[in-house]
Amino acid sequence: MEDFDRASVEREIRAEFEAYEAALGANDVERLTGFFWEDPRAVRLAPGGGLYGHAQIASFRKARDVSDIARELSEVRITAFSADFGTATCEYRRLGSGRHGAQSQVWMRRPEGWRIVSAHVSLDP
Amino acid sequence: MEDFDRASVEREIRAEFEAYEAALGANDVERLTGFFWEDPRAVRLAPGGGLYGHAQIASFRKARDVSDIARELSEVRITAFSADFGTATCEYRRLGSGRHGAQSQVWMRRPEGWRIVSAHVSLDP
Repeated sequence: MEDFDRASVEREIRAEFEAYEAALGANDVERLTGFFWEDPRAVRLAPGGGLYGHAQIASFRKARDVSDIARELSEVRITAFSADFGTATCEYRRLGSGRHGAQSQVWMRRPEGWRIVSAHVSLDP
Repeated sequence: MEDFDRASVEREIRAEFEAYEAALGANDVERLTGFFWEDPRAVRLAPGGGLYGHAQIASFRKARDVSDIARELSEVRITAFSADFGTATCEYRRLGSGRHGAQSQVWMRRPEGWRIVSAHVSLDP
């Protein structure tokens, strides 16, 4: 038996994941940056190199080219591993270019709310 | 204050991460498969599509083309979030082709030992 309510935690993470996706579609930079753990250890891996620490992640958001940002998701998986940890993974297809990729996020419940502590976005070669 | 010994947990995860990398370099299929959580919820995202569940991950390993598998790592980051959870992220360059990519793993301490519950490997376009 697990010592936490998995379905309930997964609902919470799913709501955060969906809010993040909505902010991404709107390129709401403030909101997107706010989802990330405000810590030098936050990581975002993506094509072209990794971003290390909240400051680098915030700078990237402000400068981002959003010409091919609209996308549709598939294979969304939300998994809670404890009351305070979980992952959200999905695949996506960019609507403009048709290109396929994947996204993974590690979510942690912090005193300030759920935050992404580590993310990885990839675009297939 | 954290309620766990972060440095100690990060040492444990680092040892697992390094053992995984050694098994990858040797294409030790049994060993590599053994690092993954033996559960239908285990995920491995990679170019060409995701693998969902331990059975799919094991099948992939057995069939893998290993002609460009040797690589050197950079930007290795190990972060523990609790006594039982952490992430290992890195970037890599394949020695054969020179191609650059990134890898992220979510490690969980299970009764059977540390296991990768979610992984994401990408290769830059």
